[in-house]
Amino acid sequence: MPELSPEEVYDLDRAHVFHSWSAQQKISPMVIADAEGSWVTTGEGRRLLDFTSQLVFTNLGHKHPRIVEAIQRQAVELCTAAPATAVESRAVAAALIAGKAPDGMQHVFFTNGGADANEHAIRMARLHTGRHKVLSRYRSYHGGTHLAVNVTGDPRRFASDDATAGTVHFLGPFLYRSAFHATSEAEECERALAHLQQVIELEGAATIAAIVLESIPGTAGIMVPPPGYLRGVRELCDRYGIVLVLDEVMAGFGRAGRWFAYELDAADGGWRPDLITFAKGVNSGYVPLGGVVISRAIYDTFAERPYPGGLTYSGHPLACAAAVATIRAMDEEGSVANAERLGREVFGPGLAQIAERHDVVGEVRGVGAFWALELVSDPATREPLAPTGGTSPQMAAVVEACKAEGLLPFANSGRIHVVPPINISDDDARLGLDMLDRALEKSAG
Amino acid sequence: MPELSPEEVYDLDRAHVFHSWSAQQKISPMVIADAEGSWVTTGEGRRLLDFTSQLVFTNLGHKHPRIVEAIQRQAVELCTAAPATAVESRAVAAALIAGKAPDGMQHVFFTNGGADANEHAIRMARLHTGRHKVLSRYRSYHGGTHLAVNVTGDPRRFASDDATAGTVHFLGPFLYRSAFHATSEAEECERALAHLQQVIELEGAATIAAIVLESIPGTAGIMVPPPGYLRGVRELCDRYGIVLVLDEVMAGFGRAGRWFAYELDAADGGWRPDLITFAKGVNSGYVPLGGVVISRAIYDTFAERPYPGGLTYSGHPLACAAAVATIRAMDEEGSVANAERLGREVFGPGLAQIAERHDVVGEVRGVGAFWALELVSDPATREPLAPTGGTSPQMAAVVEACKAEGLLPFANSGRIHVVPPINISDDDARLGLDMLDRALEKSAG
Repeated sequence: MPELSPEEVYDLDRAHVFHSWSAQQKISPMVIADAEGSWVTTGEGRRLLDFTSQLVFTNLGHKHPRIVEAIQRQAVELCTAAPATAVESRAVAAALIAGKAPDGMQHVFFTNGGADANEHAIRMARLHTGRHKVLSRYRSYHGGTHLAVNVTGDPRRFASDDATAGTVHFLGPFLYRSAFHATSEAEECERALAHLQQVIELEGAATIAAIVLESIPGTAGIMVPPPGYLRGVRELCDRYGIVLVLDEVMAGFGRAGRWFAYELDAADGGWRPDLITFAKGVNSGYVPLGGVVISRAIYDTFAERPYPGGLTYSGHPLACAAAVATIRAMDEEGSVANAERLGREVFGPGLAQIAERHDVVGEVRGVGAFWALELVSDPATREPLAPTGGTSPQMAAVVEACKAEGLLPFANSGRIHVVPPINISDDDARLGLDMLDRALEKSAG
Repeated sequence: MPELSPEEVYDLDRAHVFHSWSAQQKISPMVIADAEGSWVTTGEGRRLLDFTSQLVFTNLGHKHPRIVEAIQRQAVELCTAAPATAVESRAVAAALIAGKAPDGMQHVFFTNGGADANEHAIRMARLHTGRHKVLSRYRSYHGGTHLAVNVTGDPRRFASDDATAGTVHFLGPFLYRSAFHATSEAEECERALAHLQQVIELEGAATIAAIVLESIPGTAGIMVPPPGYLRGVRELCDRYGIVLVLDEVMAGFGRAGRWFAYELDAADGGWRPDLITFAKGVNSGYVPLGGVVISRAIYDTFAERPYPGGLTYSGHPLACAAAVATIRAMDEEGSVANAERLGREVFGPGLAQIAERHDVVGEVRGVGAFWALELVSDPATREPLAPTGGTSPQMAAVVEACKAEGLLPFANSGRIHVVPPINISDDDARLGLDMLDRALEKSAG
């Protein structure tokens, strides 16, 4: 029962809310008055099909009855508690998350989101190895706090760039814009691994605590790594005694059609990372929650000696109750398998058709409910429709055309990402693809 | 309706939960089965009077009906939304918080907790001034992420100490353990300000972006600054063009008998900080939430140029709904005035009596519902009962004796803090003081 009109909400927002990543006087935030499943309702009463999952976190959509009910129940039973205590929702959430993680990773350190998850994972790696440096890839995002944004490999780092942060960036596999002059995924994989090995050796393996990698880079472009790449990084980490931190904040919890996206390259269970960071999908973003899944070896480092880190809301009971409900719902509703099927049956073929119909679509790539369209002004030169980290009149026109069709699109640089709730109906998925098709027709020909 | 027995919760916690600031195999977390108001119930069914507010955040106690109801309502209406949108609970929370802040500070950037609030405040200050260095006091805590813990001035920093973080620590006023050989609060204040001025000049004023200060240092010892100190720091910041960040994460939202603790030194409204960071009490910790209240001048820095920072859950609708309910409940129930009165009528006199009865109590200090007892092995030398950042058999005995009496105490180094919910009943407050008195009698004589 809202107390304010949409106009009042807008005015109050403009008067008092300072927004992320924005020039405060140059934005006009869209009022959200309501939301249900894969749809949001704006202040003007327009219903938009949400192909963004907000910020790629409402994996089970809005108003999922089981998650709402779990929050309502936990709120009255034990809404909060200090991190040093043992409480049921926290213990069960940790057990369920560990149950989705590989053998040998059975402990969970909870944080409030992805940024602090990566900050703590790096601290664990540094203290476990006694080394300082952290390697990560260009075209990546790992969070907005100072260290996490310095690990990040996209323009969001620039304003906070700190040459003393102990971070070094390398190039990952990305065939469409290959840094390695490769002509096939296999060649891109092999050359990207050779490049990483060179960087490790030239930086000095003994100085490197961790390699931090999004299993599938998310906001930076949804570049699904070629088969063998992540496994190859694991082998390099083993060879040089480096901790492998896989950031599954966006890719994990079903988005890629697997509980964790790295499983795409570990079908035989033959390898695992040392630390997995997560957030977003773990509870569909209903309550802020993130965390680190920890290998036994790293847990053992802090068995008798204190882990020197923590936070007030580590394992917040309300957030953990939402995670318990989300994971159980995903199990019972088969959400992860559904995402995999959606990618194979709906988004993959549907987006391929769109790419065929529009020259502006340079490449389509993705898996599950996790897709990117690379928009280009010239298919031959692959010139992006907007520069990295920026926008252009052409990109703005695509976004506006999507909204005019009734679709809420996720736009970044020269790309449109297709990242709806993983339990979106097939009809809505197809409807959204039709909207996108028409929007591209009208805006970009 | 718990699904698990307390024993099962404990076992599951030990098998899967990695706890903050702990050697994982050396802890035995207390199971919390239930909690209401100022009381918690352990797994064994014992009711303990909570003189900790968990981690000094349940300012309105457990199961406050208005906050619970607001969470339940928001959970079903609009549980979550992207940070780029305008939503009612976020806009109203920002307006209410700005309404408690001084004139000229009308914008709020929301985070998930205190650490990221301080990280972002520092980024704002650095970009606003074009300077890098951050000054903060020894005996302080500002959060667990890498930059925040380096700003921190207590032993929790040591394991993550980074000489390149751009942080410098100075000594603040603390008459009981004066670094300035002062013999009165006025002299301590004057000398601490002179010391800070020297540090600023010797570090180079033009290199210093911000001074970050807890208005009243919290976990580091609840040292209420002498009258004139914070105002004096403000004057130094003005003189040298330094941004003043006041960390009100623990001291704010009523804990000190004021909406913000710095008001104790700004009764005439004659000055204000540039940035205020908050968390904990803003919504009694029912949902993770923190933030930064921003002055007009710093807002203007990011009016036309993007603020290069953000987070997925900035202004999370559920967390903001809890803040709206908390602030309205505090207004209607007079919670802030109650905290002030409790300090003046109950805790101040009651703790003074305890100090008189026990030689082990070297000093009592505090305000509102925010008190520390400095325990010493020798009142003459003021030798702490446990070293800074550590414990001792004597301190452990005090804690155990409190629990045996039915009191959940907050212990840090050689101190017991008295930090109950600010709406604790007078009877419970007096009961807790009696328990503490008996515990000291039995454990420390």
